[in-house]
Amino acid sequence: MGSSHLLPTPVIYLVEPFGGSIRRQNASMPHVFWDDAAVTRGDGIFETILIRKGVPANLEAHIERFRRSARTLDLPDPGVDHWVKATNEAVADYVRERGSEPEDVDARCVWTMTRGRETTRVPTAWLTVRPIDETALKQRKSGVSVMTTSRGYSLDTGEHAVPWMQVGAKTLNYAANMAALRWAKSHGHDDVIYIDPTTERVLEGANSTVIVVKKGGRIRTPKPGPGILPGTTQAALFEYASERGWKCKQKDIYLNELFKAESVWLVSSTRMATRVKRLNDKKLPAPENAREIQELVQQALDASLGL
Amino acid sequence: MGSSHLLPTPVIYLVEPFGGSIRRQNASMPHVFWDDAAVTRGDGIFETILIRKGVPANLEAHIERFRRSARTLDLPDPGVDHWVKATNEAVADYVRERGSEPEDVDARCVWTMTRGRETTRVPTAWLTVRPIDETALKQRKSGVSVMTTSRGYSLDTGEHAVPWMQVGAKTLNYAANMAALRWAKSHGHDDVIYIDPTTERVLEGANSTVIVVKKGGRIRTPKPGPGILPGTTQAALFEYASERGWKCKQKDIYLNELFKAESVWLVSSTRMATRVKRLNDKKLPAPENAREIQELVQQALDASLGL
Repeated sequence: MGSSHLLPTPVIYLVEPFGGSIRRQNASMPHVFWDDAAVTRGDGIFETILIRKGVPANLEAHIERFRRSARTLDLPDPGVDHWVKATNEAVADYVRERGSEPEDVDARCVWTMTRGRETTRVPTAWLTVRPIDETALKQRKSGVSVMTTSRGYSLDTGEHAVPWMQVGAKTLNYAANMAALRWAKSHGHDDVIYIDPTTERVLEGANSTVIVVKKGGRIRTPKPGPGILPGTTQAALFEYASERGWKCKQKDIYLNELFKAESVWLVSSTRMATRVKRLNDKKLPAPENAREIQELVQQALDASLGL
Repeated sequence: MGSSHLLPTPVIYLVEPFGGSIRRQNASMPHVFWDDAAVTRGDGIFETILIRKGVPANLEAHIERFRRSARTLDLPDPGVDHWVKATNEAVADYVRERGSEPEDVDARCVWTMTRGRETTRVPTAWLTVRPIDETALKQRKSGVSVMTTSRGYSLDTGEHAVPWMQVGAKTLNYAANMAALRWAKSHGHDDVIYIDPTTERVLEGANSTVIVVKKGGRIRTPKPGPGILPGTTQAALFEYASERGWKCKQKDIYLNELFKAESVWLVSSTRMATRVKRLNDKKLPAPENAREIQELVQQALDASLGL
């Protein structure tokens, strides 16, 4: 989104499934076929991983969610070692081609695995490394204006839940989220937070987890489940912050609590902690500890780097 | 699906947006980029058009729905003339390369338009022409076993409906439908019919429209709306059959009516009319007029050919 059309070409590595070869793909050449399930059905999974100081951050959590997404979609297990190897090679290329030192490089790495070509039925898999979107960098500093909205549908639960529903999987079926974001932007907002239209229970952002900071050092996030993807950055934050005396809890959160909280945040791997500065037509006051919260998320991710 | 991995390579034409050039694409080379919205978000639209006796069938209805899908997704208007021209050229190539006469060729043509590359923001568009899936041909003759199921979610309507919800658009976000089909197949069925889990109101097939034939020459189909895509083949059938004395009506249909009907059909452009011979654990008796119904659909499509 935003100014991403000005960004340089990424480093792309194709990752053959089942532990096959990895190889650099020329970014100015297409590599996806007309009959790939990603193209014809939006049928595949992805992960967005922060590269921090030249190292993939929170990697274990991303690997785990990527594998869980594959299981949920009934895709073959993507494996681990060749993804990690491909990521390291791609990041090394990226650092070298920018003429930087690894410790000076933050970037965005996206892993994608699809159900593959109709004609071959072998998953198509690749990863890209490129600069973090400038909009995301700006929003980390300036915060975002957010519109709450219903998702437009409710997932069936209980006796009406269907066994193949892809709860908890990070899939390529994101068109509805993109439509919601376009709508929000055309109405002067930067992002959306989904809420249940009947109960006003808070779900998640279009591509982020909602975090609420309350008085007394309490941090809250909606419990993952139908309509709420488990957040890797949120999990890293909760683990790190808990060890430092913050009281972190997953629990139901309702819209009115967002207006009463000390601060509200959208967290994701590349946006880290981005503060919600306006919610619908209301300004949310800047908390005194805004910088502390952002550093907490950054330190939680840095703690995973093993540097 | 089915035996489609044995099919020969298709004829592919790239269709430049905004009335630009059309050109043949080598089907053994990929043409979709890593950052295309179809790949990263499942964000685009499509139409599947029957090529019948070398001519695109029911073309006006497909053009109209394709343009409506584009409007609903806030995509640029795809235009008409260069799509028709590309379709005719692709079909001519396909006929010639098979060494056939046009009147002997039935085939499947798919139009696709995506939101385009993140780096260019110009829609990516192409069409393919290839043989009709052998499974579809077999099922036209033998009928299908169908499982009813909830979709796994309910679209919000009334005050909770969201303005960007893509009702009535034929989008590339089909992963949930594919998951439902895989589930049905793993349980011995060929297809699914979606029903509302609370009211048991009948919605549609995974990629077809439900048609019910009742005593007294009555043909029924669920009224299009949230969860029910308007069917081009159903519309052609209704127009053609009405002129021949059938009483055709769009109205709410409930699950128990399917068991009491003379016959139940899934209709779509390439499957034409495929009879539901088993629904859940119940055999649906073959009606005396099965052949008549199938011919009615075929004649309705043939009437559009202008031959």
